[in-house]
Amino acid sequence: MSATAVRALSYENINPHVKTAKYAVRGELAVRSEEYRAKLAKGEGKDLPFDTVIAANIGNPQQLDQKPITFFRQVASIMENPELLEKEEVLTSGLGYKPDVVARAKKLLAAVKSVGAYSQSHGAPAIRESVAKFIERRDGYPAEADHIYLSAGASSGVNTLLHIISSKPETGILVPIPQYPLYTATLAVLDARVVPYYLDESQAWGTNLGEIKSAYDKAVAEGTDVKAIVIINPGNPTGASLPAEDIRSVLEFAAEKKLVVMADEVYQTNVFQGEFISFKKALRDLQKEVPKKFDNIELASLHSVSKGMVGECGHRGGYFELIGFDEKVAAEIYKFISIQLCPPVMGQCIVEMMVNPPKEGEPSYELYKQEYDGIFEGLKKRAHALYDAFKQMEGVSCNTPAGSMYLFPTITIPAKAIAQAKKEGRAPDEFYCFRLLDATGVCVVAGSGFGQKEGTLHFRTTFLAPGTDWVGRIVKFHKEFMDEFRD
Amino acid sequence: MSATAVRALSYENINPHVKTAKYAVRGELAVRSEEYRAKLAKGEGKDLPFDTVIAANIGNPQQLDQKPITFFRQVASIMENPELLEKEEVLTSGLGYKPDVVARAKKLLAAVKSVGAYSQSHGAPAIRESVAKFIERRDGYPAEADHIYLSAGASSGVNTLLHIISSKPETGILVPIPQYPLYTATLAVLDARVVPYYLDESQAWGTNLGEIKSAYDKAVAEGTDVKAIVIINPGNPTGASLPAEDIRSVLEFAAEKKLVVMADEVYQTNVFQGEFISFKKALRDLQKEVPKKFDNIELASLHSVSKGMVGECGHRGGYFELIGFDEKVAAEIYKFISIQLCPPVMGQCIVEMMVNPPKEGEPSYELYKQEYDGIFEGLKKRAHALYDAFKQMEGVSCNTPAGSMYLFPTITIPAKAIAQAKKEGRAPDEFYCFRLLDATGVCVVAGSGFGQKEGTLHFRTTFLAPGTDWVGRIVKFHKEFMDEFRD
Repeated sequence: MSATAVRALSYENINPHVKTAKYAVRGELAVRSEEYRAKLAKGEGKDLPFDTVIAANIGNPQQLDQKPITFFRQVASIMENPELLEKEEVLTSGLGYKPDVVARAKKLLAAVKSVGAYSQSHGAPAIRESVAKFIERRDGYPAEADHIYLSAGASSGVNTLLHIISSKPETGILVPIPQYPLYTATLAVLDARVVPYYLDESQAWGTNLGEIKSAYDKAVAEGTDVKAIVIINPGNPTGASLPAEDIRSVLEFAAEKKLVVMADEVYQTNVFQGEFISFKKALRDLQKEVPKKFDNIELASLHSVSKGMVGECGHRGGYFELIGFDEKVAAEIYKFISIQLCPPVMGQCIVEMMVNPPKEGEPSYELYKQEYDGIFEGLKKRAHALYDAFKQMEGVSCNTPAGSMYLFPTITIPAKAIAQAKKEGRAPDEFYCFRLLDATGVCVVAGSGFGQKEGTLHFRTTFLAPGTDWVGRIVKFHKEFMDEFRD
Repeated sequence: MSATAVRALSYENINPHVKTAKYAVRGELAVRSEEYRAKLAKGEGKDLPFDTVIAANIGNPQQLDQKPITFFRQVASIMENPELLEKEEVLTSGLGYKPDVVARAKKLLAAVKSVGAYSQSHGAPAIRESVAKFIERRDGYPAEADHIYLSAGASSGVNTLLHIISSKPETGILVPIPQYPLYTATLAVLDARVVPYYLDESQAWGTNLGEIKSAYDKAVAEGTDVKAIVIINPGNPTGASLPAEDIRSVLEFAAEKKLVVMADEVYQTNVFQGEFISFKKALRDLQKEVPKKFDNIELASLHSVSKGMVGECGHRGGYFELIGFDEKVAAEIYKFISIQLCPPVMGQCIVEMMVNPPKEGEPSYELYKQEYDGIFEGLKKRAHALYDAFKQMEGVSCNTPAGSMYLFPTITIPAKAIAQAKKEGRAPDEFYCFRLLDATGVCVVAGSGFGQKEGTLHFRTTFLAPGTDWVGRIVKFHKEFMDEFRD
C-alpha cells in the first residue's frame, strides 16, 4: 500500500465523467441554505440576519406549503391501504370521500394489483392507455399505449433517452443555453458532447433558428455527430413559452438534419401567456400540411407529475412518448429501463390521475377545479409580484412571466463587485447569490449554473414561496449590494 | 437522406454498450409469459394447456397475492392523505387504526413534510438517522446518518456505485457467477469489465477464496484494474446463505488487494439456515481483532424494501451505507444522485418502517409479528415443497434452501434435447424453460441469464407463488420432457 493511496477509491481515480458533471440546482448554495435551515430549526442561528430560509432554488411546491390536490391524495390513501374499501361506509360518510374517489381507487388497483408490486418495466398497461388517451384529447391526434414509457419523473426519462442516443464521445446533442442542468450533467456522465445553442433573451427567450444552425454547423465542422436537439418548453430556467413558429422551425430543422427531437414539456400547464402547443401536435400538423418531409422524424416528449398544478415531486412520476422511433431501438430502450425494474408504482398512479382528473359533473370535480385554479392563480400572481419587483431594481431586467415556475432576470452589477467575486474565486453571479443567501436567507441559483451568454449575469428564482415578504428581502438586499459596490 | 437510414437512430448507431447489456429476468421468456397472461385475462387462450400463468421468474411477492404488512400501509395511507389526521376519531374507532399508526404517520410527516415534496438527494435526514440506528442495533457497532444514502430500490444504489467506480474500460469488478444480472448489465452499459468468479455449488454455493484469487490474478494479468468485489448474501440466484468464514475471507482478500466491497444484502431477513451476518459487522469484528490491516477498507452495504417479509417492490425504496469512503468520493456520489433529484419519498418512508417496525408492547406489534412470521413461514414451507419436488425429479439436483427467495437447481437433460435446442438456436437451459412455460404456464429464468459453469445447466425459480399446484405442474412437465428426449 503506498502512502498516498490508502483506499481503493480516491477523487483522483474515480469516474472522470462523473467528476466533470455539474449540477448547481443542488450545489454549494443549496447545501449552505440547508445548513442555515437546520441551524434555525434547532433554535440556533441568532446571529443570522433572517429567521427563515426561502428555497427559491428548486421547483418543489409542497416543500413550500402548496397543498396537494385532494382527489389525488384521497385515491392514493386507498391505494396504500385497500382494506379501506371494506369500510366504504366509513370512507364516504366518516371521511367524506366522494364515490368517484372510491371508483378511481378500485380502477387503479385493478390496473396495478398493488402499489407494492413491480409493474411492467415501462409501466402498468392500463395507465399507459390512459396517458395515450390524454395525449389524443390534448392534441387531436392518435397516441398509442405501446409508445408510452412511464418513468421516475421526467429526469429518469431524459437519462434513458440520452443513454440510448449517446453512442460515442463524438455524439452531440443540441442543448439550449440557458438550460436545466440535467442535460449537460447527464451528457457529461455519458462522455458525449453538448452542442450549445443560445436562446434569444431579447425575443422573450425564444429559439433563434439562425443560432441553432450556426451551433450545428460549428459542431459538425469540429467532427461532432449531432444526433438530437433538446427543447424545454415552457422554458427552464427562462420562464418562456414558445410560439408556434419557433416550434415549427425547430421541427423543420430537425427533419432537414435528421435529428431526434427531445421535447421537455413538463411545464405544459404552467402557461401564463399564449397557449401551450405540444411538439407532437405541431409535428402532426406539419405532417398533414407537407407531404413526406416529416414522415421519419423521431420525437420524444416528456411530462411529469412534479410540476404543473400537481406538484407531486416526491412521488417521482412521469412519462415519455416515443413518436417515429425504430422498433429495434424501442426494444433497447425497454431493455435498458428493465435493468432498474420499474418506475415507482404510486408515481404511475399519480400520472394517471394527472392526465385523467375528475371531469365536470363528477362528484370531486368542483373541489378539484377550485384547488387547481387556486394554485394556478397563486403562481401567476406571485410571478407578477416578483416581476414587478425586478422592474424596480437597479440594473435588473426581466422578461414578462410567460410559463414554467421560474423567472431568470439579467443583473448588471458594479465592476467593484465583479472584482470582489474574482478575489473570492467565484463567478460574479454566484458571488451575488451567496451574498443574497447570507443576507436574506433567500436561496436562488446563479445563471452560470444553467449557462448564459459570455459577459451576462442572471439568476433563477422560483415563484413558489408563499407570501411576498421574501420578495421585499431581495429588493432591500439588492439596493444595499449595489450601494456597497458602487464605483 | 440515404435509403438505408431514414431515421436518426437505428439499431446500428445507438449506444453499443446498451446493446451489449443482457437482462434475462425481464427478457424474452418473461415477455412471452405476459402475452399468455394477457390472452387468458381476455378469456382467450382456450388452446393453451394451462389456465393460469405463474410468474416464478421474478421476486415480486405482491403480484403473487402476498398481502402487505398492515402497519406499513395504514401509516402510508395517512402519509398520502394527512387530512385524515383531522379526523383521528374516525381513524381510530371507524377504521381501527392503532395509536402507534397515527403517531408514526405524524413523525414521518414531520420528517418529510409531504410525500409529494423532493427530499434531500440522499433522503430525509430523520429517515437516514433511523436507518443508522437500525444498523447499530443489528450489528452492535455505530453507524452514521451521513453515511446512509436512500435509493430507489437497491438497484439504483448499485447503479450509482458502479458509475463512480468504473473510471475506464479497464476497470474490473469481481462479480460472482451465477449473479443477479443487474451487475453484468450495468457494467456492460458502463463499458467496464466483469471479472467473474465462480461460486461453489458443491459447497452450498459458497464463495471459494481460491476461485476468487485466480479470477483476480487472471484479470490483472490481462491488464484489468480490479477495483471492487460484489457479494450477494443471501444469494441471488443461488439461495445460499454465507457462513462467517466466507465473509471473513472475502474481507481479508479485499483488504489485501485494496478492493471496494459491495455487499448486496437485500435478502438479509430471508434466511432459513444459520443466521445472517452483515459485512459491516464482520468488518468491525476484524478491525477489533487485527490491528491496522482493515483500517482503510471501503464497504458499501445495500438493502431494500422489495425483499424480506416487506415485499414492497413497487415503492422502490432502499438504501446503501458507505463505510470507509473518502469524503471527496462521497461528495461525488452525492452530486451524481442529485442529478436525479431524490428517491421516491414514500419508498423512503417504507424504508423507515422496515428498519423500525412496531416494537413489543406497542399496539400494532401483535398483528405485525403475526403477519411477518406468517410470511416467513409461508416462504420457508414453499421453499421446502419445491426442494422436495426437485429431489424427486430425474437429473435434477438442488442445494437445501438456505436464504433469499430462490432455488437454483442443476438440471441434466438428454443429449437429444440439447441437440434440439441447438437446432432452434437456443441455449439448452433456455430451451428447457421455454418448453416449461409453453406446457405449464410456469415462468422461470434459465441459468444462462445469471451465468453458470461451462457445461452445467440451471434455472432460477422463486418460491413466492401461492399453493403447490404449480410445483406439480413442473414435476409432470419434467417427466414428459425427459421421456420425449430420452436417448
